[in-house]
Amino acid sequence: MNDALRPIRALPSGDAVEVIDQRALPHRLVMERLASPEAVFTAIRDMRVRGAPLIGASAAYGLALWLRRDPSDASLAQGAAWLGSARPTAVNLAWALERMQRVLRPLPAAQRAAAAWAEAGAIAEEDIAVNRAIGEHGLALLRAVAARKPGPVRVLTHCNAGWLATVGYGTATAPIYLAHEAGLPLQVWVDETRPRNQGASLTAWELGRAGVPHTLVADNAGGHLMQRGEVDIVIVGCDRVSAQGDVCNKIGTYLKALAARDNGVPFYAAMPLSTLDLRVNDGLTEIPIEERSAREVTHLAGCDAGGRVVEVRLAPEGTPAANPAFDVTPARLVTGLITERGVCAADARSLAEIARHG
Amino acid sequence: MNDALRPIRALPSGDAVEVIDQRALPHRLVMERLASPEAVFTAIRDMRVRGAPLIGASAAYGLALWLRRDPSDASLAQGAAWLGSARPTAVNLAWALERMQRVLRPLPAAQRAAAAWAEAGAIAEEDIAVNRAIGEHGLALLRAVAARKPGPVRVLTHCNAGWLATVGYGTATAPIYLAHEAGLPLQVWVDETRPRNQGASLTAWELGRAGVPHTLVADNAGGHLMQRGEVDIVIVGCDRVSAQGDVCNKIGTYLKALAARDNGVPFYAAMPLSTLDLRVNDGLTEIPIEERSAREVTHLAGCDAGGRVVEVRLAPEGTPAANPAFDVTPARLVTGLITERGVCAADARSLAEIARHG
Repeated sequence: MNDALRPIRALPSGDAVEVIDQRALPHRLVMERLASPEAVFTAIRDMRVRGAPLIGASAAYGLALWLRRDPSDASLAQGAAWLGSARPTAVNLAWALERMQRVLRPLPAAQRAAAAWAEAGAIAEEDIAVNRAIGEHGLALLRAVAARKPGPVRVLTHCNAGWLATVGYGTATAPIYLAHEAGLPLQVWVDETRPRNQGASLTAWELGRAGVPHTLVADNAGGHLMQRGEVDIVIVGCDRVSAQGDVCNKIGTYLKALAARDNGVPFYAAMPLSTLDLRVNDGLTEIPIEERSAREVTHLAGCDAGGRVVEVRLAPEGTPAANPAFDVTPARLVTGLITERGVCAADARSLAEIARHG
Repeated sequence: MNDALRPIRALPSGDAVEVIDQRALPHRLVMERLASPEAVFTAIRDMRVRGAPLIGASAAYGLALWLRRDPSDASLAQGAAWLGSARPTAVNLAWALERMQRVLRPLPAAQRAAAAWAEAGAIAEEDIAVNRAIGEHGLALLRAVAARKPGPVRVLTHCNAGWLATVGYGTATAPIYLAHEAGLPLQVWVDETRPRNQGASLTAWELGRAGVPHTLVADNAGGHLMQRGEVDIVIVGCDRVSAQGDVCNKIGTYLKALAARDNGVPFYAAMPLSTLDLRVNDGLTEIPIEERSAREVTHLAGCDAGGRVVEVRLAPEGTPAANPAFDVTPARLVTGLITERGVCAADARSLAEIARHG
């Protein structure tokens, strides 16, 4: 990670954070200063910042800004509940806000705003350390692939679980970046990830910037590539993992897991332990799936020949569309979960163990 | 099919056909007159006409136009080989051109151009009859679903195997149109079908025009919908079916077949027998897969707020992309093949039987 850019950065003034407005990527690099909790809320809801770990860190800073106005007990609970409603699926959002409250509640109200700012910073720094550790454990998996075949290690990834989705390194991309730094030859298949195209617009941008060889494909192509033996390993991120190892991640992940299983390709999810939700057992029935705007399916923004970002409509005017944003991959299809404490089997016992002892 | 539009129509003058330029849909309805074999070749190659049955009929008319110039034996073989090279995957293209040659070769050269025009017309008319028969057999499947559950029959389809892909009715859509005419309540999930968006631009347009209730979804969503029990049956088209029942169809079909199997949802391919290629046994290893331009993945055309059709780039400039256009669904995942002679199991014996006896 020699990239000087950060998806979120606390300003030294202590009263605002600067983020990359990810909606403008890959066509423009737009930095935005968020100086109020409302600005943070909107940035999360509108996906200017997105990705489970980054949402968590952003919300923590949002709560710190909120407490500058009113640090009372009632305000702390109210601010956390409100910020938590910005995106319903990402467990890191709830996790970060719970952690903030746990730390702040015992403190005198007058100390809370400053302590909140410091704790948000700690969450951000820990995220970088966690992802680096995930990277190390994932790197061992990639080295094992490289040891048993010639040519580059061919990784397929879905959506963007890259550094843009975190505070640094990314989760699914951390092994890729560390492998690239270590000189391991790589070829990354980047799923476009409709309807918001996070693969085409964010992962491709990240990998291109880092000089990692990659090829963009339609989400439809992954099964075919696996049938042809052109994928060695699938690594995705996750928004929430249940106690029994079901992986909730960007819509379409489940289809790739099915194809991986059908073709004997190992399927891993990179999972910071903060993403583990032990209150949920059966991911399929218990995890609420965010239904986003139909317009994200029927319309799309891109860069025209003149370099302008233009929104275009794909479907006939008025076409009804559904837009479930996540799906759940049952644990039975998951080869393993790459955590900061090592690679863990996707089952209740292994997850309880790793969560408890490390 | 009360729609007066036809995707291909022979002009009474006998020296040209009129087609819908499907690249302009759904934003504009553009008719194009094809008055030379070169124009037909280009229309097939550039996917102004697309869909296996329509390609077959178009190529037949193209050969008829070619023979107006030179009806010799050498010219007949040369024209057929050249037209057959316009799209490598669709077996109907080869099928139609072989049928034309078989009929025309025995005739005196002077009679060939007129006979070719008539035979192309016969191919077109037979396609309509075949699709209507597929519709009747598929309708029985939909009625069976309706008989065992309340509410609409929820059909998921991929790509466009609608009337635009044929000469009339469509293949995968024929059961849908007949069911709609018969008053059976329907809800059709329309896969967007990246990278060329035939679902969003063509199937949604067709169904909207016919008043069939439908909902557009990203290709990524189908697995999730099946997990949630929101799909009763999957019906897709096919570009080529092997002797053992492997189904080659638009890229991404295989992923939907995997999800259907994983969730106990019946998966059918609507297959005119002209799509059966008995020379191919193992579809996975023997069917060549067309690799199309990377630009179809990185760029996309849509309608801007001012009603203009604009091409926009989605990915960072220069992003490498791969674009396999089809995949092969192994026979083991196919519940049945809906042919004009009835529903057939996807295995060598059943297919040989239905091809021989009907």
